[in-house]
Amino acid sequence: MAPILLNCMGNDHKEYIKEQVQVKNPYLDMMEEDILYHFSLGTKTHNLPEMFGDIKFVCVGGSANRMKAFAQFIHQELKLSGNPDEIRDICEGTDRYCMYKVGPVLSISHGMGVPSISIMLHELIKLLHHAQCRDVVLFRLGTSGGVGLAPGTVVVTDKAVDYSFRPQFEQVVLGKVITRSTELDEGVASELLQCSSELQNFPTVIGNTMCTHDFYEGQGRLDGALCSFSHEEKLEYLRKAYEAGVRNIEMESTVFAAMCRVCGLKAAVICVALLNRFEGDQITSPHDVLLEYQQRPQVLVSHFIKKRLGQIV
Amino acid sequence: MAPILLNCMGNDHKEYIKEQVQVKNPYLDMMEEDILYHFSLGTKTHNLPEMFGDIKFVCVGGSANRMKAFAQFIHQELKLSGNPDEIRDICEGTDRYCMYKVGPVLSISHGMGVPSISIMLHELIKLLHHAQCRDVVLFRLGTSGGVGLAPGTVVVTDKAVDYSFRPQFEQVVLGKVITRSTELDEGVASELLQCSSELQNFPTVIGNTMCTHDFYEGQGRLDGALCSFSHEEKLEYLRKAYEAGVRNIEMESTVFAAMCRVCGLKAAVICVALLNRFEGDQITSPHDVLLEYQQRPQVLVSHFIKKRLGQIV
Repeated sequence: MAPILLNCMGNDHKEYIKEQVQVKNPYLDMMEEDILYHFSLGTKTHNLPEMFGDIKFVCVGGSANRMKAFAQFIHQELKLSGNPDEIRDICEGTDRYCMYKVGPVLSISHGMGVPSISIMLHELIKLLHHAQCRDVVLFRLGTSGGVGLAPGTVVVTDKAVDYSFRPQFEQVVLGKVITRSTELDEGVASELLQCSSELQNFPTVIGNTMCTHDFYEGQGRLDGALCSFSHEEKLEYLRKAYEAGVRNIEMESTVFAAMCRVCGLKAAVICVALLNRFEGDQITSPHDVLLEYQQRPQVLVSHFIKKRLGQIV
Repeated sequence: MAPILLNCMGNDHKEYIKEQVQVKNPYLDMMEEDILYHFSLGTKTHNLPEMFGDIKFVCVGGSANRMKAFAQFIHQELKLSGNPDEIRDICEGTDRYCMYKVGPVLSISHGMGVPSISIMLHELIKLLHHAQCRDVVLFRLGTSGGVGLAPGTVVVTDKAVDYSFRPQFEQVVLGKVITRSTELDEGVASELLQCSSELQNFPTVIGNTMCTHDFYEGQGRLDGALCSFSHEEKLEYLRKAYEAGVRNIEMESTVFAAMCRVCGLKAAVICVALLNRFEGDQITSPHDVLLEYQQRPQVLVSHFIKKRLGQIV
């Protein structure tokens, strides 16, 4: 594989080896075959190094349509040959996730919530391992509720925090709860902030992102099927979140940060705020405005990738 | 609305009223408009009573393709007019969920994991409330890992339990954890067991279903990207689960049971076991065998619905 990246390779051979995607499971190498069930891929049925060995950037997001649109967008941005409309879903054997490969970029959907993205991440990390990928950067591109931010603002996550604003993720292993750190890569985050300053009229902040396991009660919304608290109690919770540095709320960042960290993958979370939760719970912006907002994380990450590839100096 | 059901209507007017789908949120009736964002439906843009008022059975499952196939299957089973292949996704304005209506049956996908199904349930329960539906029975049709069961066995859930085998669901409300009961409707479960005995060669058990927030470490799998325990420790955890009455493991039943219970909805969980977790972690049955297994919960629920509608005596 030719080193196609400019700014992120270690010169030392040892450092280079270290950057390989690490699985933390001694059983994997003993398995005759590894079936990545939710991707409809496998080590015996597919040549994973050939299919994926040159991947350097993985972009994941909740919606299947949006990740297809991102794949087509990055195809155009990188000026690759071929028709972006003919891009093929690599996981077409299943409807659990969809996956598109565009040059060194992989675009995958992960559904909504921690369990859904966690299944995808287990199989993605195994995929990158089997494919012997190196120096991979992972991005989660998402939508979120803003906390004290104008709709359309992009938040690059500093720390992913839980409902008590702690930078940790609780994982159950054999019936016992263990706690993992959710620290993300500082270098990638500040590189993204730098990218945002190079784009025009691109409101971006670095802040903490709260990850909840529920969209309604868990985020203090007054418009769910269940609601047992008052408007004032909701505002008080959001104020506490704001004081703890939380600038947006979504549903996947803690497990994403925790798993990438354990496996030595550099990762960042970039979400646009669709509304300001201090002002309401329902998303009321017109469809075309929402569409433009949802493209902002894509535009930012595309700029980052083009810089890393030397297409923007 | 004409009463189309034979066996489930209360004669008393008061009892009849009581069976209406209840939301537990005083704010909802004050809202000028309720946008069911993840369904791409709303109270101002859609006539929900006209579209959904006659719904008596709601069937939900993880996979969008499978819930489309179920809608087509139940269309044929109920001998409805029209072409089942031309069935339309009511939620085509979004790719978060898909939804099909076939006579009194609604078929909806919910993705994977508690957060994903929880968003869907909030909006579904509001939908049934806005549509003034009565006497609705909810079914989750799913796939699962079997605990001491042969692949292909159907499990009708007795109690939905958490990773410590407790029949409860923990919900965060304004940063505090509250606990809800996950008891399901006994009558519907035994009616389903009776249905299974009327079908030929239809292995079915009633048992506890363990709901986890993770497919790999959370279920004691040895084949994830992360695994810090031994084969023997895994088997010990599964043995404890079996002793606590657990017969299968999936990822949505606790929140499904808890939310239906709080809102007064009769509900059941019917999952087929795709493998016996004592014997392995990876699903190795051939594709056509898996397809037949996955249809079993659909066949059972279809039999139940046809009996309730008086199409089978």
